[in-house]
Amino acid sequence: MKTLRTLSFACLLACAGFVGPALAQEATTDPQTPALEPVDVFHGAGILIMKTPDDSFKWWLDGRLMIDAAMYHNSDNTLANGVKVRRARFAMNMVFWKTWASQLDVDFADNAVDVKDAWIGYTGVKNSLLRFGNFREPFGLETLTSSRYITFMERSLIDNISPDRHLGAAFGHWQNRWQATGGVFGPAFEDTNDAIGQDQGYSVTGRVTALPVSMDRSLVHVGFAASYETPKAATDPTLKDANQMRLRARPESDVNQGRFIDTGKMSNVDHRDAIGVEAAAVFGPVSFQSEYNTVQYVRTVAALPEPSFDGWYAFGSWFLTGENRPYDRTSGEFERVIPKSPRGAFEVVARYSELNLNDFSAGITGGHEQITTLGGNWYINANLRLMTNYLFVVNDQYSKGDRSYTTGDKFNVLQARLQLNF
Amino acid sequence: MKTLRTLSFACLLACAGFVGPALAQEATTDPQTPALEPVDVFHGAGILIMKTPDDSFKWWLDGRLMIDAAMYHNSDNTLANGVKVRRARFAMNMVFWKTWASQLDVDFADNAVDVKDAWIGYTGVKNSLLRFGNFREPFGLETLTSSRYITFMERSLIDNISPDRHLGAAFGHWQNRWQATGGVFGPAFEDTNDAIGQDQGYSVTGRVTALPVSMDRSLVHVGFAASYETPKAATDPTLKDANQMRLRARPESDVNQGRFIDTGKMSNVDHRDAIGVEAAAVFGPVSFQSEYNTVQYVRTVAALPEPSFDGWYAFGSWFLTGENRPYDRTSGEFERVIPKSPRGAFEVVARYSELNLNDFSAGITGGHEQITTLGGNWYINANLRLMTNYLFVVNDQYSKGDRSYTTGDKFNVLQARLQLNF
Amino acid sequence: MKTLRTLSFACLLACAGFVGPALAQEATTDPQTPALEPVDVFHGAGILIMKTPDDSFKWWLDGRLMIDAAMYHNSDNTLANGVKVRRARFAMNMVFWKTWASQLDVDFADNAVDVKDAWIGYTGVKNSLLRFGNFREPFGLETLTSSRYITFMERSLIDNISPDRHLGAAFGHWQNRWQATGGVFGPAFEDTNDAIGQDQGYSVTGRVTALPVSMDRSLVHVGFAASYETPKAATDPTLKDANQMRLRARPESDVNQGRFIDTGKMSNVDHRDAIGVEAAAVFGPVSFQSEYNTVQYVRTVAALPEPSFDGWYAFGSWFLTGENRPYDRTSGEFERVIPKSPRGAFEVVARYSELNLNDFSAGITGGHEQITTLGGNWYINANLRLMTNYLFVVNDQYSKGDRSYTTGDKFNVLQARLQLNF
Repeated sequence: MKTLRTLSFACLLACAGFVGPALAQEATTDPQTPALEPVDVFHGAGILIMKTPDDSFKWWLDGRLMIDAAMYHNSDNTLANGVKVRRARFAMNMVFWKTWASQLDVDFADNAVDVKDAWIGYTGVKNSLLRFGNFREPFGLETLTSSRYITFMERSLIDNISPDRHLGAAFGHWQNRWQATGGVFGPAFEDTNDAIGQDQGYSVTGRVTALPVSMDRSLVHVGFAASYETPKAATDPTLKDANQMRLRARPESDVNQGRFIDTGKMSNVDHRDAIGVEAAAVFGPVSFQSEYNTVQYVRTVAALPEPSFDGWYAFGSWFLTGENRPYDRTSGEFERVIPKSPRGAFEVVARYSELNLNDFSAGITGGHEQITTLGGNWYINANLRLMTNYLFVVNDQYSKGDRSYTTGDKFNVLQARLQLNF
Repeated sequence: MKTLRTLSFACLLACAGFVGPALAQEATTDPQTPALEPVDVFHGAGILIMKTPDDSFKWWLDGRLMIDAAMYHNSDNTLANGVKVRRARFAMNMVFWKTWASQLDVDFADNAVDVKDAWIGYTGVKNSLLRFGNFREPFGLETLTSSRYITFMERSLIDNISPDRHLGAAFGHWQNRWQATGGVFGPAFEDTNDAIGQDQGYSVTGRVTALPVSMDRSLVHVGFAASYETPKAATDPTLKDANQMRLRARPESDVNQGRFIDTGKMSNVDHRDAIGVEAAAVFGPVSFQSEYNTVQYVRTVAALPEPSFDGWYAFGSWFLTGENRPYDRTSGEFERVIPKSPRGAFEVVARYSELNLNDFSAGITGGHEQITTLGGNWYINANLRLMTNYLFVVNDQYSKGDRSYTTGDKFNVLQARLQLNF
Repeated sequence: MKTLRTLSFACLLACAGFVGPALAQEATTDPQTPALEPVDVFHGAGILIMKTPDDSFKWWLDGRLMIDAAMYHNSDNTLANGVKVRRARFAMNMVFWKTWASQLDVDFADNAVDVKDAWIGYTGVKNSLLRFGNFREPFGLETLTSSRYITFMERSLIDNISPDRHLGAAFGHWQNRWQATGGVFGPAFEDTNDAIGQDQGYSVTGRVTALPVSMDRSLVHVGFAASYETPKAATDPTLKDANQMRLRARPESDVNQGRFIDTGKMSNVDHRDAIGVEAAAVFGPVSFQSEYNTVQYVRTVAALPEPSFDGWYAFGSWFLTGENRPYDRTSGEFERVIPKSPRGAFEVVARYSELNLNDFSAGITGGHEQITTLGGNWYINANLRLMTNYLFVVNDQYSKGDRSYTTGDKFNVLQARLQLNF
């Protein structure tokens, strides 16, 4: 009976308590049944971690809760004020058998399921991570930085050019002064149920970053990313959404869900080519960051024009309380700020951002938006942050967006967020 | 490299196992990186708790699973019998940095996400709690009592007058013999995505409770609550749902989802004023509880009538096994019963409840419903409860409800629940 | 104040940190308040377990993440290739007060909530489990085997005859050489909200299994199951879906969601009778498994024909690395394979499967499908499995399915899965 692992370990779990003590004892002495190994529990600045003494197995739950409020002023359109929960998310993270890792991260904001990272990874190659599943394509410094750690409440307009999360496989390798990541990807998590004869789109994306300067409390980061992406394709051109792509953006505010700039659906798209250039510098408590993204849509019909769009942002940040923005060399991203003082850390920030969705030569007038933001972040402790942003939004004469807005609207936004990350 | 917190603690988590031991070692010795602190694991009557020895950080998972069955007798309408999972819920609770707390509670019944409590709280002011996020407005003793601890399977009809959960901010303060809580609130969690020009509704709500009698195993509780609430408002009156409010109620049974009393949508509502009065008394194993709620709808057009509705309930409970209903002085609510005997606790209960949604002077005949309930609760252990309720429902001649029911229906309901709370 | 359990344990949790140290201290010394008992944390081959030293209370989180890719060849229909997350699931499992158990298991694949097991169980009768809630009806060896442990990526065609998960109550008893389980069930979890006058369907299902041979590393399993199931019923025959049943099946591939065989909705169904016969044999690393299911639909109108359908499968498995398929005697199911070697276990598998949804005498031509599958499974470690399946699918001339497919389609599928279970 031992040898078939009857009343096996899996059963001890599945049926725990259902078997009498004698049988359970027998099961645990079955040589094929793994023994229970002790696990220690810790926390590091509010993040709960369980792990074996030899670090072969780790588990940690994390989560985030972001409560937003926004007021809109001086708009020619009637933008309603409001509050919302921007993100309400739980994640289970694991390291197992030393060289494997996994993350399963689910968002419940808007009372809807939105699976974010859901991947299985292999770390057995030195300084490398091979991942399969759903995660962000390697493109864009601000896009890749966790929403818990971004400097402004919303990412910049050009984040909409980044390919975001898709199902795929990627390999990343890092050294002390550089990292490179590349992968192939399919559709988004929620968009995988095929119709007849309509192949999912795919993409190939890569990013390389380096640290030409890396000194005591200072660094200079540069990066470059490129992405080739196809739309859903169909041999039968009457199929809905086949060979279409669209680019649009919210005005760096999410409480009011409208978008003022929008290319609309572009048809007969064969693929798009996107390029991103990044630079960032940290000099102790002061830092700068800037990115430029451009994208071109190549058509299936040679006679059709090939619209291209671009945008950029630049921002500065100053920690009045002396912290500096921490950097993760393994992924070329910025990380969690932990205040030095029990009264927390205070950061003042300013950003200029624009995205131009007009391509007159291609006949697309999606609008051009420019946003200047001033803000202050109070890192109350390692787990809690209060953010305030004041935005000056300027739309051009083509920005009627996805809700037939009055064009040329110039308005201001005052928004604030209370954020928990654990 | 130390100073930039490269391969920082956050990375140690995010990339745990991805960095070689040498680098990881370096990271953990970085003076800006928080050390891992040990966390102890306990349970208290089946609720799992993790906490640091100094109680600065705590985490606890809780949940509930409620399995219901209901049979409907003697109805002039054909009410179908059935079973359902009434609630299936997980929550993550946290205390962090001693003076901060949080709860994130998600329900999955009906295979839909329903985020319940999702808040961040500050407890640094003595005997006080300041909360931001989604939680119940302070109104109504039975409304505020957790569904795990309510005495009957469903709350009374007048629970529908209580404002329930909304996104907002509230401050509560308590002393040994009284507590007071007040707050301002916006929309419900799922209703925060603004349309153009349609402002979210808001409310201002407060509740005061006191214990005029507080003796050995006995207490008398009194309370008063008031709430001012506006509907979604629009400058453009053609917008859907703008300036509308509605009041309706299920017959204290949830398996059959119909409602027999319903005001329908009342238009041109400026705001509603609700008032609640509470009283409860515990004399050892015997307790009584009663509430009266009334609400008036004030219109945007002066010529329109201002309908008002009211209702009340009273119930008695007797623990044959000698337990008493525990009371939480910090929030003025009743709490979890923990049986004294390994065979559990047994409670017999009876309630009379009514809600009148007829206001003839205002031309609204939403129906009047009266329900008498007899029941028995077996608290099998601290985590498990079997509830049975038998209802006598009497509807008046206007109670056609939201499904065009035959009016004047008098019927009986036999319903039972097996409930797990952990 | 002590005696009313004010600032009770429940409050200590709910309000943890909200009460001053003095009051909290008093609360924990209240004799009615349960003391905190220490809980130990372990893992067994990557499954995290928390339990009290006396095993009275246990908690374990488990989960699964399955990432699939599929390519379709030689089809007369245009079947699109693709990738998808097949399952992304978390479960909380509990044993409490020694004799009670519970499971709450939620799937988030397709960005939708799908509550799987959600039950409360009693284990106080020796070698028995009484369950209430949502779980699989006891029918079908492969149906009952967890998706984490099934031998092929998808269960066989005849799994669609098994009644699957419903809300109900079931009692199971086991001995060393046999087990029997029976129960009564209502509707599926997501289908419990009654309309007026439309009773939920119900079913009565039982299964008996035995081990005529049970030796060192070898066993022979036989089983028999029967199920009586009614559709939603209505006195008013115009109600939607009343008295209807349907049987259909995907071609053992889930990336493309089409089905080639489908009876369509059969009306005027009084109930269906299903019967299943199972046999399995393990001889060390080699095993065989086969099942035959048949179902007949009995009509409410005597003159109507009573269609019946059947199907079967048989498969063989060989662990090249010497493991054997572990068996759980308490439930008559197969269990988790734990590789012997750090390089993992390797299994080659082959299956023939067919389902015939044609009943010409009853006038139903739903199609007949036959599938031959070759596959290989690499159990990388106890938590990770890479599966590859190659399918030869043969449809008959009636198999237009639920998407008006070209009938008689013969095609091949190459599919693979990376699976994490923890």
